Amino acid sequence: MDFLEEPIPGVGTYDDFNTIDWVREKSRDRDRHREITNKSKESTWALIHSVSDAFSGWLLMLLIGLLAGSLAGLIDISAHWMTDLKEGICTGGFWFNHEHCCWNSDHVTFEDRDKCPEWNSWSQLIISTDEGAFAYIVNYFMYVLWALLFAFLAVSLVKVFAPYACGSGIPEIKTILSGFIIRGYLGKWTLVIKTITLVLAVSSGLSLGKEGPLVHVACCCGNILCHCFNKYRKNEAKRREVLSAAAAAGVSVAFGAPIGGVLFSLEEVSYYFPLKTLWRSFFAALVAAFTLRSINPFGNSRLVLFYVEFHTPWHLFELVPFILLGIFGGLWGALFIRTNIAWCRKRKTTQLGKYPVIEVLVVTAITAILAFPNEYTRMSTSELISELFNDCGLLDSSKLCDYENRFNTSKGGELPDRPAGVGVYSAMWQLALTLILKIVITIFTFGMKIPSGLFIPSMAVGAIAGRLLGVGMEQLAYYHHDWTIFNSWCSQGADCITPGLYAMVGAAACLGGVTRMTVSLVVIMFELTGGLEYIVPLMAAAMTSKWVADALGREGIYDAHIRLNGYPFLEAKEEFAHKTLAMDVMKPRRNDPLLTVLTQDSMTVEDVETIISETTYSGFPVVVSRESQRLVGFVLRRDLIISIENARKKQDGVVSTSIIYFTEHSPPMPPYTPPTLKLRNILDLSPFTVTDLTPMEIVVDIFRKLGLRQCLVTHNGRLLGIITKKDVLKHIAQMANQDPDSILFN
Amino acid sequence: MDFLEEPIPGVGTYDDFNTIDWVREKSRDRDRHREITNKSKESTWALIHSVSDAFSGWLLMLLIGLLAGSLAGLIDISAHWMTDLKEGICTGGFWFNHEHCCWNSDHVTFEDRDKCPEWNSWSQLIISTDEGAFAYIVNYFMYVLWALLFAFLAVSLVKVFAPYACGSGIPEIKTILSGFIIRGYLGKWTLVIKTITLVLAVSSGLSLGKEGPLVHVACCCGNILCHCFNKYRKNEAKRREVLSAAAAAGVSVAFGAPIGGVLFSLEEVSYYFPLKTLWRSFFAALVAAFTLRSINPFGNSRLVLFYVEFHTPWHLFELVPFILLGIFGGLWGALFIRTNIAWCRKRKTTQLGKYPVIEVLVVTAITAILAFPNEYTRMSTSELISELFNDCGLLDSSKLCDYENRFNTSKGGELPDRPAGVGVYSAMWQLALTLILKIVITIFTFGMKIPSGLFIPSMAVGAIAGRLLGVGMEQLAYYHHDWTIFNSWCSQGADCITPGLYAMVGAAACLGGVTRMTVSLVVIMFELTGGLEYIVPLMAAAMTSKWVADALGREGIYDAHIRLNGYPFLEAKEEFAHKTLAMDVMKPRRNDPLLTVLTQDSMTVEDVETIISETTYSGFPVVVSRESQRLVGFVLRRDLIISIENARKKQDGVVSTSIIYFTEHSPPMPPYTPPTLKLRNILDLSPFTVTDLTPMEIVVDIFRKLGLRQCLVTHNGRLLGIITKKDVLKHIAQMANQDPDSILFN
Repeated sequence: MDFLEEPIPGVGTYDDFNTIDWVREKSRDRDRHREITNKSKESTWALIHSVSDAFSGWLLMLLIGLLAGSLAGLIDISAHWMTDLKEGICTGGFWFNHEHCCWNSDHVTFEDRDKCPEWNSWSQLIISTDEGAFAYIVNYFMYVLWALLFAFLAVSLVKVFAPYACGSGIPEIKTILSGFIIRGYLGKWTLVIKTITLVLAVSSGLSLGKEGPLVHVACCCGNILCHCFNKYRKNEAKRREVLSAAAAAGVSVAFGAPIGGVLFSLEEVSYYFPLKTLWRSFFAALVAAFTLRSINPFGNSRLVLFYVEFHTPWHLFELVPFILLGIFGGLWGALFIRTNIAWCRKRKTTQLGKYPVIEVLVVTAITAILAFPNEYTRMSTSELISELFNDCGLLDSSKLCDYENRFNTSKGGELPDRPAGVGVYSAMWQLALTLILKIVITIFTFGMKIPSGLFIPSMAVGAIAGRLLGVGMEQLAYYHHDWTIFNSWCSQGADCITPGLYAMVGAAACLGGVTRMTVSLVVIMFELTGGLEYIVPLMAAAMTSKWVADALGREGIYDAHIRLNGYPFLEAKEEFAHKTLAMDVMKPRRNDPLLTVLTQDSMTVEDVETIISETTYSGFPVVVSRESQRLVGFVLRRDLIISIENARKKQDGVVSTSIIYFTEHSPPMPPYTPPTLKLRNILDLSPFTVTDLTPMEIVVDIFRKLGLRQCLVTHNGRLLGIITKKDVLKHIAQMANQDPDSILFN
Repeated sequence: MDFLEEPIPGVGTYDDFNTIDWVREKSRDRDRHREITNKSKESTWALIHSVSDAFSGWLLMLLIGLLAGSLAGLIDISAHWMTDLKEGICTGGFWFNHEHCCWNSDHVTFEDRDKCPEWNSWSQLIISTDEGAFAYIVNYFMYVLWALLFAFLAVSLVKVFAPYACGSGIPEIKTILSGFIIRGYLGKWTLVIKTITLVLAVSSGLSLGKEGPLVHVACCCGNILCHCFNKYRKNEAKRREVLSAAAAAGVSVAFGAPIGGVLFSLEEVSYYFPLKTLWRSFFAALVAAFTLRSINPFGNSRLVLFYVEFHTPWHLFELVPFILLGIFGGLWGALFIRTNIAWCRKRKTTQLGKYPVIEVLVVTAITAILAFPNEYTRMSTSELISELFNDCGLLDSSKLCDYENRFNTSKGGELPDRPAGVGVYSAMWQLALTLILKIVITIFTFGMKIPSGLFIPSMAVGAIAGRLLGVGMEQLAYYHHDWTIFNSWCSQGADCITPGLYAMVGAAACLGGVTRMTVSLVVIMFELTGGLEYIVPLMAAAMTSKWVADALGREGIYDAHIRLNGYPFLEAKEEFAHKTLAMDVMKPRRNDPLLTVLTQDSMTVEDVETIISETTYSGFPVVVSRESQRLVGFVLRRDLIISIENARKKQDGVVSTSIIYFTEHSPPMPPYTPPTLKLRNILDLSPFTVTDLTPMEIVVDIFRKLGLRQCLVTHNGRLLGIITKKDVLKHIAQMANQDPDSILFN
């Protein structure tokens, strides 16, 4: 199926934990494409092959969308069932969750739709009652027990089968998309284990979400499906295009926001994102969203639990509390990143990191013990967010909607602002406690050796803060509607303030503070509310939050984790602002020995092998002669080793004294010398060069935009040195007063 | 206010119709930024300056949004009024349009809401009756007369005051954003004249829209407002970031689609679009949309006339007609582009182009004469689209909704499929005629010397075709609901088919065929309908349409016009697929005289002046010596001329025999020689170089991604030649079997 001949197997591939060369990969794909196009004129079969090759991208997107959507549906349904399992079981069929169990019941009124005889709490099953302190203790005990069981299973599975399945995966995916190779990170084992352990981790009640890991799951699907198509299997650059689209599909199903997903992929995770990929990502995101919707995991024909529609407009004055929420979000984001990174660093450097299972069990136990007594921590975080976003209707039985005179409304359906009842006050207290718990426990949860996403906990923190502020504003407006700030727009008995909107704005602010997303955040939230109306509050909060958080620390949580792990990731958003030159960064430094070079036609196999064994560089420049130092090309260490080995094995007579030449024609040789070895085919004849006086800001730009691995430095036409991506990253770290040795890989 | 010293005025600026050097512009901005940041630590004033500098971008976006939104509102209101003026006038106040006039009337029932005594048609005013053949002729005559008057005014104003105000402006804006300089194209005169003539052109009833020109208007606003901020006034690259955002704001108000606008700017018009700009564009687009909404030009609290909400779901089988519409859209797009370009080429090359006023008047007269008798061509195209998109409700009085048993409905509000009545049949005929007229006349209209957009006519063509097919399908489903394809989902008396949705899908298909937009098109349409539900039909149609149209011709209408005009635009979407090398493209060619170079320290002022006067190159490489040909740097012709002139004027003793040197230190000179001239400050010490064996696909990529103007070619460290952007464009044209001399500018 592949028309390209690969003369020596292995040439042109990469080692694990190395950076790919985008230019070379793209060239190879263009060669492939050219080949197919040329052949397509020859025969019908080749024409069909050419057409199928052109459409394979779309087919792949369709498959990714279907698979990602199905997996998301599966995860949603299982997590829902297992979360309910902590509280009880359905006797009508153990596979029903609480809600489904009671749907099938006839014994249920609308008021008591959560209580039906088929659903048995653990105390009912064990001691046949649901009343009294002992029953409470039984339920409490079972809740903690299940949580510990789920967490233990999750961490053990991750530890034994797929260590890469832990965390949210987004920092690693960003790094991979920028051109790094981590074998197995997107493999089938990671997919299987991550899917299973994600359900377990979410069900264990830990303060984590499934949204980030869903991106990882979708990327695994993308990567695995790539293996079915030659075009994508063999080309690292093309495969990364697919992964970008898969990431979009992942967010699309996580939030039910296809457009937001594409923008997230564009803004947050992708590195090389051509417009063709944008269109395909959109397709994949849409297919995934529709697959998930036809599975309908929440029974509300929405893709997420916390979809909401508001009906009351907001007033310009309300921008003040919204901006306050933005400030809160920014502060929380900055605080979270600092403390979480500090804790993760501690985990990396101390004994703590050696006992992941115990760590997870301890955190789960603490979370579960503290969570059970408070109904807002006991429920799953998505449900909590859904309840906080919700605008109180007439029939809402939630405590948050327990206002006085709640059934006494003049206008049909719409509820005016009313004084808060007992339920609201008690809910406020419980929410405040929930807020503190979530803030503290999330810091310790994110980064443990289980799949854990940050979106949901961040949103929960923001939503609680927002709802608290919203209810506060509502009561203020009710009792003091004669104040100047209210009386122009809020008459008594009108529905002025929507606390649910405050919760949503708060959620956006906190999410923005942690991740530093901008457009994609607003669009995701817009797709959750379905009204252009509310973009302005969301945007105001997101902007404030980003500014505040940026003032306290430039990096988002993903970039911080990338740096913590020392991945070679060249941030595309940050401008390099220092006035250094290429000569300050290149190797060799001023007092170092000269640059190791090969000459084009005068070195023997032995010379080259000595250089290879004495150095660890991943490539060598080839020059005309050592004296002139005029650059001919660049050859990669890996290709060189493979070619020489291959030649020694196959080519007749190549011995240690054979001359290696990179020129078009063999150099003139005295008679009776051993046969020469031509290696021009592995020589990169168009290496990138810059002059020694090129400002580093331009060099960084070139590395970023062209996806280079290395770049040679010349002065007045003579080769002077070399700059690798790692050098660039180290230099950036140094300039930012960070430890340059934190960059670990090539 | 500016901390940077510019030693010689004029150095670093560009001539008209030249390409900017993105790398240099961005470096200059970074220098500026660094300067401000460094100073900000010194004094409070400088700190305030630094903060205000950082926020000036946001302020600028706010102003652009406000101005673009207001202008759009003004244009909408005036065009509405003047369109109605062709039919009559309001005696209650001549400044009311038909609708407003009758709002204020008491004499009007809901059924006759278009007829009120205050509104007088021209026949009523002139011969005091609205009945009979003579009155019809009077109205006909007045209609044509007003149309001709408006068109004459429009074309005269454009011709006399601002020739750049014609056309849609999008091809030129694309070119400008890619780094080309066209002075005055975004100036204040263009803004004023384009705004006025746009209203006139739309009101004249020609087959054109205001959406494309609105983008131009918004970009003019952006460019003019840039002059208030040093940061943007002096830097061509930064200014282009602002223009990208302004284009987003333009589309945002044109379609009421802020997200779609940003994606349009990203996908269609922008060249260099960093993520920071994405966020700001979004802000500008949102401000513009909200400004327009607070003006509320259509009185429906929507931003566009043809906003619509559908309520009936679509069935999977309907994808077949949707894909048919996609095919139609693709065919129409390809046909339109070919014929329109052929006609525009004829206009450029023959006598026709010399009589723009007559051309406009003739086309207007034909349009008006053919349009008046048919009510669907007489109404404004936006209104037509709005009516076609509309799903027939119970109270619709439109002929398109004249079904049998229309008031006989079982379910409340929702109308089941019914047999078409007389009105529908006659409407079908009239729509078919309208379709033909629009198809033909648009080809001749787009490209005339008046502001003219393509979005609306394309959408109209598609909407008509879609509605025709939709009604056809509806009748088919009604009369043959027992067919296999229908009976599974369409029972008798159900509302199976929504003809309005077909119209919308058709509109998307045709717009996609003409412009080849993808994601932005779907998102714009999504924002027009406000339901995720209908993205799939839109996407299916848009994809089919793009594939069909691409198969018949790769270019969209804007790219075709760019090529027609010979602008130096390097398409970012198209991959360069040929296997040529840099040495095949560089100048000098194999048999040409050697490359003109300067030496770094041995040429006199006279030598250099001779070279300048004998050649027309816009820059010269500087080498160590003619013999070694080792590259030192690159100097621009314009900078060289300005510097030498300046030196001759000011520097003591610089005469024709003075030595010019580009090195750090003056070369050793014999005594009694005239003073030397140091020009190192204008030398670009980091020119981009590639080797002669670099594949052109990589060279094209470098030009595109880094925004280069020229690139030097070396072989084994020696300078061999130069490739300019024009060379690249010519080569691409040549490889695509086009005339390489069609590229006109530098």
